[in-house]
Amino acid sequence: MSSSATVTETLPDITWVQSAARQLAGKAVVTPLLESPAFNAKLGFRLLVKAEPLQRTGSFKFRGAYNRISRLSEAERRRGVVAYSSGNHAQGVACAAQLLGAPAVIVMPSDAPALKLENTRGYGAEVITYDRFRENREEIGRRIRDERGMTLVPPYDDPLVIAGQGTVGLELALQAQALDAKLDAVLSGASGGGLIAGISLAVKHESPDTAVWVCEPAGLDDHARSLAAGHHVANDPGARSICDALLAPTPGDITFAINRRTLAGGLVVSEEEVLRAMAAAFRELKIVVEPGGAVALAAVLAGKLPLAGRTVAVVCSGGNVDAATFRRALDYAN
Amino acid sequence: MSSSATVTETLPDITWVQSAARQLAGKAVVTPLLESPAFNAKLGFRLLVKAEPLQRTGSFKFRGAYNRISRLSEAERRRGVVAYSSGNHAQGVACAAQLLGAPAVIVMPSDAPALKLENTRGYGAEVITYDRFRENREEIGRRIRDERGMTLVPPYDDPLVIAGQGTVGLELALQAQALDAKLDAVLSGASGGGLIAGISLAVKHESPDTAVWVCEPAGLDDHARSLAAGHHVANDPGARSICDALLAPTPGDITFAINRRTLAGGLVVSEEEVLRAMAAAFRELKIVVEPGGAVALAAVLAGKLPLAGRTVAVVCSGGNVDAATFRRALDYAN
Repeated sequence: MSSSATVTETLPDITWVQSAARQLAGKAVVTPLLESPAFNAKLGFRLLVKAEPLQRTGSFKFRGAYNRISRLSEAERRRGVVAYSSGNHAQGVACAAQLLGAPAVIVMPSDAPALKLENTRGYGAEVITYDRFRENREEIGRRIRDERGMTLVPPYDDPLVIAGQGTVGLELALQAQALDAKLDAVLSGASGGGLIAGISLAVKHESPDTAVWVCEPAGLDDHARSLAAGHHVANDPGARSICDALLAPTPGDITFAINRRTLAGGLVVSEEEVLRAMAAAFRELKIVVEPGGAVALAAVLAGKLPLAGRTVAVVCSGGNVDAATFRRALDYAN
Repeated sequence: MSSSATVTETLPDITWVQSAARQLAGKAVVTPLLESPAFNAKLGFRLLVKAEPLQRTGSFKFRGAYNRISRLSEAERRRGVVAYSSGNHAQGVACAAQLLGAPAVIVMPSDAPALKLENTRGYGAEVITYDRFRENREEIGRRIRDERGMTLVPPYDDPLVIAGQGTVGLELALQAQALDAKLDAVLSGASGGGLIAGISLAVKHESPDTAVWVCEPAGLDDHARSLAAGHHVANDPGARSICDALLAPTPGDITFAINRRTLAGGLVVSEEEVLRAMAAAFRELKIVVEPGGAVALAAVLAGKLPLAGRTVAVVCSGGNVDAATFRRALDYAN
């Protein structure tokens, strides 16, 4: 069986997202779809903002992690799960595992922010640190998986993880319907592409005419370039960004197989546009958004799409930002 | 008829709040009741946070203003409304008046923050500025009311305004019930006392055993001292506070007539405790709270009540804070 056949067979569809929504009911927060009529008036279009910073663990990552771990057999759950992540996926997996009574090992870089290490341990996970300049986290994760019989929870390239993240899009589409808002476009950021893939499945099912766009920071625009090229393109390994949550090197196999069929294309934003979007979220919406969570908002505020008179929804995907970085955004708040 | 008889006759009760809730349906945001299990674990008690920064205009003030203005006769509405305020009430009245098609004049100090002047004008209100060291805003408001036949919308001492603010408490009580949370205590801040009066009417109706506390910054603790004394006590006219939304000199007549019967007492917090609460809201809840909106959160985080093992709800009442002030709070975010 070829690799692409395998991918096709395991592609999740809308029924996976609907199933994930049932699995997450009462576990994940149904985050609000925020709107400020005053901000709309300034912008000249109607803007709806899905506020995932208000999700458990401060980002959407809890959704996919919970959906994945909750499907384990009783025996698998007892043996536990392992994941590698420096940030939001770490906290999502640790929190979901704790709720489901599964031991969790999270492999994190030894120089990860103290707060993220502390939060991950706060969910009862065992944190194993590694030197990210000398060691390979995937190898460490696989070794722990094999030694302890644990299940690896991938950050994005997994049908159940994608379906869990897709509940963001399902909620968003239904909340927009309740507001009588006909969505012209939906935008979200991407690292490995699990969130935007799941969202696109849900949004295209609920509202087929809505264009779904993926947004990325400059230099990490592997999805935009892969969509344009029609095949996987990788970022320059030396690429740096303030968007610490969006560092995956290339689109996932499963995520790209979905996204190449569902997405209208990719939009790229600068670091200053990201900081300005964080400032706008502070000033106009009163929510805290981290750089990687603000790329979609940045794209619409920076005019990357012609939106006059239209209705657009953006996903702000997380709010786990330290004070020093937030101060940089506040420079643009007045 | 004596003054106290007049007050008693016009005291709103729970039916006023329920009526306000119907009036505000589809107009005000049903703001989320946020909870972070990880934060709960650190605190040792269950904390629910009513997030009014996510309300239209960035504070609860829209609720009372809309309820008041929507009850005007058609003729009154055409003549319009006038209010004096340097901040949140100004925006609440301007926004409600615009939605209801009523002209609005807002009397604001000439040295009010540029953003608040701009936002108020953004809702289509005519802003009249005055020199707050040489002119009296109540006099200016009354003169405009008389000259233009407008209706004055008081910031707190009005049954319909109190009832509108009370919808915060009604939503909170019902949202807590939906979470299976039995509330031991509910806390909110006060300036003139309209919000806490309305909240107490709703909470004591839905959950009679829940203690309702008013919270204030040190030096502006007129409610705490008035409740203890059993009669109106005023703040020192020279009192200053970072809580710019909480500067009313003494409890209102109607609000105090309610609060002296419904409240368990008053809690007083320091400026540093307020800044620490704003930082906790940033770090743990991902919402932007202004100083005056953070006093209730400050009271529970600073341990003003014994809460171990209990369930408590606090109202974060607004998020209209400038970047410079927010930076001061971020000093406590790590």
